[in-house]
Amino acid sequence: MVDTPAFGAWSEVGQLRRVLVCAPGLAHERLTPTNREGLLFDDVLWVEEAQRDHRAFVDALEAQDVEVLELHDVLAETLAVPGARDWLLDRKVVANEVGTLFVDPTRAHLESLPDARLAELLIGGMAVEDLPGADRPSYLHAVGPDRGPADYLMPPLPNMLYTRDTTCWVGGGYTLNPLYFGARRDETLLMKAVYGFHPGFAAAQERLLWGDPERTWGSATLEGGDVMALGGGVVLIGMGERSSRQAIGQLAAALFAAGEAERVIVAGMPKLRAAMHLDTVLTFAAEDVVTVYRAIVDGITPFSLYPADGGGVRVVVEDRPLLEVVRTALRLDALRVVNTGGDDFAAERQQWDSANNVVAVRPGTVFAYDRNTRTNDLLTEAGIEVLTIRGAELGRGRGGGHCMTCPLLRDPVDY
Amino acid sequence: MVDTPAFGAWSEVGQLRRVLVCAPGLAHERLTPTNREGLLFDDVLWVEEAQRDHRAFVDALEAQDVEVLELHDVLAETLAVPGARDWLLDRKVVANEVGTLFVDPTRAHLESLPDARLAELLIGGMAVEDLPGADRPSYLHAVGPDRGPADYLMPPLPNMLYTRDTTCWVGGGYTLNPLYFGARRDETLLMKAVYGFHPGFAAAQERLLWGDPERTWGSATLEGGDVMALGGGVVLIGMGERSSRQAIGQLAAALFAAGEAERVIVAGMPKLRAAMHLDTVLTFAAEDVVTVYRAIVDGITPFSLYPADGGGVRVVVEDRPLLEVVRTALRLDALRVVNTGGDDFAAERQQWDSANNVVAVRPGTVFAYDRNTRTNDLLTEAGIEVLTIRGAELGRGRGGGHCMTCPLLRDPVDY
Amino acid sequence: MVDTPAFGAWSEVGQLRRVLVCAPGLAHERLTPTNREGLLFDDVLWVEEAQRDHRAFVDALEAQDVEVLELHDVLAETLAVPGARDWLLDRKVVANEVGTLFVDPTRAHLESLPDARLAELLIGGMAVEDLPGADRPSYLHAVGPDRGPADYLMPPLPNMLYTRDTTCWVGGGYTLNPLYFGARRDETLLMKAVYGFHPGFAAAQERLLWGDPERTWGSATLEGGDVMALGGGVVLIGMGERSSRQAIGQLAAALFAAGEAERVIVAGMPKLRAAMHLDTVLTFAAEDVVTVYRAIVDGITPFSLYPADGGGVRVVVEDRPLLEVVRTALRLDALRVVNTGGDDFAAERQQWDSANNVVAVRPGTVFAYDRNTRTNDLLTEAGIEVLTIRGAELGRGRGGGHCMTCPLLRDPVDY
Amino acid sequence: MVDTPAFGAWSEVGQLRRVLVCAPGLAHERLTPTNREGLLFDDVLWVEEAQRDHRAFVDALEAQDVEVLELHDVLAETLAVPGARDWLLDRKVVANEVGTLFVDPTRAHLESLPDARLAELLIGGMAVEDLPGADRPSYLHAVGPDRGPADYLMPPLPNMLYTRDTTCWVGGGYTLNPLYFGARRDETLLMKAVYGFHPGFAAAQERLLWGDPERTWGSATLEGGDVMALGGGVVLIGMGERSSRQAIGQLAAALFAAGEAERVIVAGMPKLRAAMHLDTVLTFAAEDVVTVYRAIVDGITPFSLYPADGGGVRVVVEDRPLLEVVRTALRLDALRVVNTGGDDFAAERQQWDSANNVVAVRPGTVFAYDRNTRTNDLLTEAGIEVLTIRGAELGRGRGGGHCMTCPLLRDPVDY
Repeated sequence: MVDTPAFGAWSEVGQLRRVLVCAPGLAHERLTPTNREGLLFDDVLWVEEAQRDHRAFVDALEAQDVEVLELHDVLAETLAVPGARDWLLDRKVVANEVGTLFVDPTRAHLESLPDARLAELLIGGMAVEDLPGADRPSYLHAVGPDRGPADYLMPPLPNMLYTRDTTCWVGGGYTLNPLYFGARRDETLLMKAVYGFHPGFAAAQERLLWGDPERTWGSATLEGGDVMALGGGVVLIGMGERSSRQAIGQLAAALFAAGEAERVIVAGMPKLRAAMHLDTVLTFAAEDVVTVYRAIVDGITPFSLYPADGGGVRVVVEDRPLLEVVRTALRLDALRVVNTGGDDFAAERQQWDSANNVVAVRPGTVFAYDRNTRTNDLLTEAGIEVLTIRGAELGRGRGGGHCMTCPLLRDPVDY
Repeated sequence: MVDTPAFGAWSEVGQLRRVLVCAPGLAHERLTPTNREGLLFDDVLWVEEAQRDHRAFVDALEAQDVEVLELHDVLAETLAVPGARDWLLDRKVVANEVGTLFVDPTRAHLESLPDARLAELLIGGMAVEDLPGADRPSYLHAVGPDRGPADYLMPPLPNMLYTRDTTCWVGGGYTLNPLYFGARRDETLLMKAVYGFHPGFAAAQERLLWGDPERTWGSATLEGGDVMALGGGVVLIGMGERSSRQAIGQLAAALFAAGEAERVIVAGMPKLRAAMHLDTVLTFAAEDVVTVYRAIVDGITPFSLYPADGGGVRVVVEDRPLLEVVRTALRLDALRVVNTGGDDFAAERQQWDSANNVVAVRPGTVFAYDRNTRTNDLLTEAGIEVLTIRGAELGRGRGGGHCMTCPLLRDPVDY
Repeated sequence: MVDTPAFGAWSEVGQLRRVLVCAPGLAHERLTPTNREGLLFDDVLWVEEAQRDHRAFVDALEAQDVEVLELHDVLAETLAVPGARDWLLDRKVVANEVGTLFVDPTRAHLESLPDARLAELLIGGMAVEDLPGADRPSYLHAVGPDRGPADYLMPPLPNMLYTRDTTCWVGGGYTLNPLYFGARRDETLLMKAVYGFHPGFAAAQERLLWGDPERTWGSATLEGGDVMALGGGVVLIGMGERSSRQAIGQLAAALFAAGEAERVIVAGMPKLRAAMHLDTVLTFAAEDVVTVYRAIVDGITPFSLYPADGGGVRVVVEDRPLLEVVRTALRLDALRVVNTGGDDFAAERQQWDSANNVVAVRPGTVFAYDRNTRTNDLLTEAGIEVLTIRGAELGRGRGGGHCMTCPLLRDPVDY
Repeated sequence: MVDTPAFGAWSEVGQLRRVLVCAPGLAHERLTPTNREGLLFDDVLWVEEAQRDHRAFVDALEAQDVEVLELHDVLAETLAVPGARDWLLDRKVVANEVGTLFVDPTRAHLESLPDARLAELLIGGMAVEDLPGADRPSYLHAVGPDRGPADYLMPPLPNMLYTRDTTCWVGGGYTLNPLYFGARRDETLLMKAVYGFHPGFAAAQERLLWGDPERTWGSATLEGGDVMALGGGVVLIGMGERSSRQAIGQLAAALFAAGEAERVIVAGMPKLRAAMHLDTVLTFAAEDVVTVYRAIVDGITPFSLYPADGGGVRVVVEDRPLLEVVRTALRLDALRVVNTGGDDFAAERQQWDSANNVVAVRPGTVFAYDRNTRTNDLLTEAGIEVLTIRGAELGRGRGGGHCMTCPLLRDPVDY
């Protein structure tokens, strides 16, 4: 009997078998026009509708034989494990975050909650108003009455919706990413608790390649939207504002040491808002099909990292464009490119709406937002089956199907 | 036989009989992440879906016995009238806008178009790319290859969607408003053409109270979202960034001279983004019911304008809050207030999504966006019938049902 | 006896004989951290010190045999001419700007002032607080108590410091420029009054080539910082945010019609903040010496305009870089280029501090800010005599010696 | 023989005996229009002039019998102590900051430098360009050619100019502050090295009250511009964006435990840009004289912290305005208030230019920027001796004399 691995991602387009998602919820109820910039959202969203749309996406994934784990559930199950609740509260309810005066009442209140509600607050944030009445007044006095409802005992994590960023599987190992913005740091802590305590993640536990939310990483930041395990020993990583050379060098060394990669292609992204993550401008739809926003991708500077003798990393500068570098690395005769659809106006609009941020469930079948009709038509013409997700609400954080899914188990493909 | 007037608005809540709207279209196809700020939109929108949602809104209005005029149609009909096409092109295709080199080819191209297509370009804008090929190259050379598709021969007018702002009926007269932002100025020119040439608007022609897009108005700017003909001789006008004291003083004098008002209550708005127009924070749902965003409305400074002896305007400072001033002006025993729903987070979110921007079709029946469920529930509890509009796309320009409708004929109510 | 012309500019570097400047003053006293963005200044300045520095600049110009006219003086002399005061007040104290209620008291107050004080208020702005007490209260009531001191009856014109922009002499004719920002429009009106009434400007009156602040120009905007009459029949004009193709085409046609130019070289500027005006990145220091900020100038797209048969303008696209186009147009064997000094950091810093914005008093002698020591050293090494202006305060509006001087009479040079 | 303490600050106005400053330098040479926002400066400055002005300030302090320590010197002396160089380089030249590939060449290069040059780079930053040529190319390849000179191996610390923020003496103990912005974090690390290794700071070493740059502090951030040891057992701390309740609570507990304070008055600042630090709106000029920017100070919410039974902190809400709370806490019959000078315009301008940010050298004698002439006149009228600092360059980072001085030894006064 052959043992099926429970975790691992050996390609971007092989059959997706298990995936982690996180439904919209309390964190998004706390998003307002005033605080949205600090929370990295362009707009507020209608949460109930976003939840319906996300649930429909999960149903559609399941209809494609993908096992879907939802983080609120997973975190609640984690909290039920002895030790997990204390481990998380010891790290979240500290004087540096809650304030000396409120450590005890906050901890007491959180201790009293059932697992599901505690999981909700860990993701959705705990506002001052969430403290029971008896403990609340003194706190409000301490803060002063003019500071508004935007003050938290635990911060909301609305970007947890994009589970892709926090942790990535690259071959048989995973990372716990130090995210770029402070507003997102605690997302990784939650994932460390899941890997560390949830019984379903026991098989993963020893397979950490790099990263730890309990250490400081300084300028070494990495987000999963930049990391693509293409297969054939090749990993493609976008380098830009979010994922830094300081992190990529370390990850490459770890991948080489663990035997999970033979070559890392680094895509040096131009410094533009539209170039947030690599997967906002380039994703794979089949072994030999990419969808690409040319206005950015043509400005990418590629180079490659290889294992150096005696450990470490060796840099090779590439003199051809990124897509050509990727093609030859994957030993393809041709890499078919589906551009963002329409004229310059339409292409810019659709990239913004995550048109190039598709996620494959198997070679040639992808999920994409319904609103990017022109790009979706081009994908269809290229022989790709496009399954649509409603994007009216989910897309307001500027992430699509690729961002909202963290593959826990995906099959390899041949290259 | 009593003659029914064809135009006029004698209240905010009396039976709505005729209304002007403008469907989303080409102008919104030209909205991009890069140019949206200059075009005053927070986000790009999915135009086909916005069109479906707008069509459904029109159908629902018609189901309420409201005659709906759509501006693309109205403008096309206007262009069919002899003289109208020349009148508009003489004013739009000028060296100051098109550039000396392109006046002739642009005019020639526009002359060649059918009315409906010309109406579409007048609202949707004409990009360099829309010039026929033979005329295009030299123009592009003149501009330089680095300026992108955002260069226009006629500007797109995406805010025309908010027909309320451009022209307002106050009693039996109307205005042609000098709008605050240069990006919107040409909206008023289109409306002048409609009033001047369209046979259905013949009855209106002589009833202009104030404004003319062919004159310059300097700091005297006015937008219809700030103007509410309450009835009972009372007009309420918001004064803020968009509608200035320089304009309001002139409009008040014109209203008094024409006998269309006895008192103008000015609502001096605080300088905050959320306080764009008065109707973004306060609208009427019935004779004695307003829906209000308290965080802004409580900061409004009211005063009143009355006719002065010998013409002109007399100022009376008010020492009570706005809602109390309005209540007594309307001789009401009570003015019932429906606040934005939910806690501080939810209220701020819903105001942003136009929760307080409802439009009444008759006393006690209003249209509101579907997404503001909590405010809509409160309205319902207050006995108001709430008919919903899909807001996912239409709401991205920060305007709701009130902004999207320009009442051409609305009945009075008793005060 | 040969008649010396009183006005005209036939080069960028010939002997400067008469120049118009405008000292810092009341307008800058009104600049605050809150309103500076609207008034287009990066920072507030110490007005008394700026006045001392400006006075020293004027003294140094006079020491170089340049006759210096200062606009406060010139405007006061203008107001002394019968008709001038009424002409200006008729245009400034209007309901659209002052508000209906305040036209009379404002006019009465301004009528009562001596010429020098009225000139000061016309440039420096008139705040609500400047109204005499008896008239003030009702106005304040009308505005509402929450609007702060930033409300004006006449706007302050702090950018009048940069006299270059408002009017330009090109050969024997001049322009009255429609400036890009509304906050600067009234600067041109003041200059029209000067040309129209001041006896010393009588010789200029008939020589207007283009522009009129009493007409509307729409997208046709022009600022003198983009216009350089190089000599030899060649005029160089920067095209960017401030000076549009719509204006440049019209100006070129006017120059050709008046015989003031045979060729207009248009410098299509990249869309970058540092590329505000052409003279912020390129100025002439001698017949064959330019100082240039390469990071911008290398991104300029040049093309040329020539007179077309039968009037109008003909476009010729250039396929060589701007400096090469300029060199051959001026029939120079070599055009020596002095770059902004220092490494990338220093060059960016100095361009920002107007290092490339020098003004020549004669071939090879220029004024430059003291702070740009590295660029000034390079100019000196290139054989240019550099006279320094203190820039600590004057430079905070991002303009240097070139911006602060409007040549009224400058000699030709041989090309 | 009585032992004079070497360190300690027992008041805001007692005789200043030793002070730490940091001259402008390399870090400011690296400030550009592009990166200034990230480095928290409003404008670039003329470094040589700023150095002259700063040197004059130091001379004037010394003329007042103040011993002045300059951080470049102090840091160079620190590096000369065995172990100090390794301690700092072990913490600065790490893979997370420098990148794995460049740890070795960067360390090797820095090891080779003399102490003074190394101190300069530690404060001024080390750019990629500062690596010796042999090591540079591969690095540049790794980064990609499009990232500009703004990439550092060690970040520049231009805000080190404001030595007040990094470390504060409160009575006989000091803090090592976790600063709010990541761009400033390494400032505190440098100070830890100074306290830990410099022989002149040996007496201080055991007196740390709170803070450690090698720990993470999360939301507990503190900056010295908010901390004022008033004397009489009273410490005044501004709470706002920079100094959080999470930090203030911890510091108060530490002060009470060490016996360095009996009461902490917390000034809850409104959320406004002008209210950056408490000392930007309020400083002491004599025992009973404060200079104050009323537009902000009147919006402050005060409350007090006292030692709680059994350790910890007890909150008492104040119901009187801040200045009244301070007056009674200091047992003063009257607290004389010198407001920012001039009308609303002038006051806003001068506060921006640090008019209220004076530093006393003894009761009644303060240093202030020369440019704030109106506030300085009011101080003089109030009997305060005002010594001026040239502010044209030094003031561009929005800090004055108070910000630029960290008192290491200051006498108590009687309250």
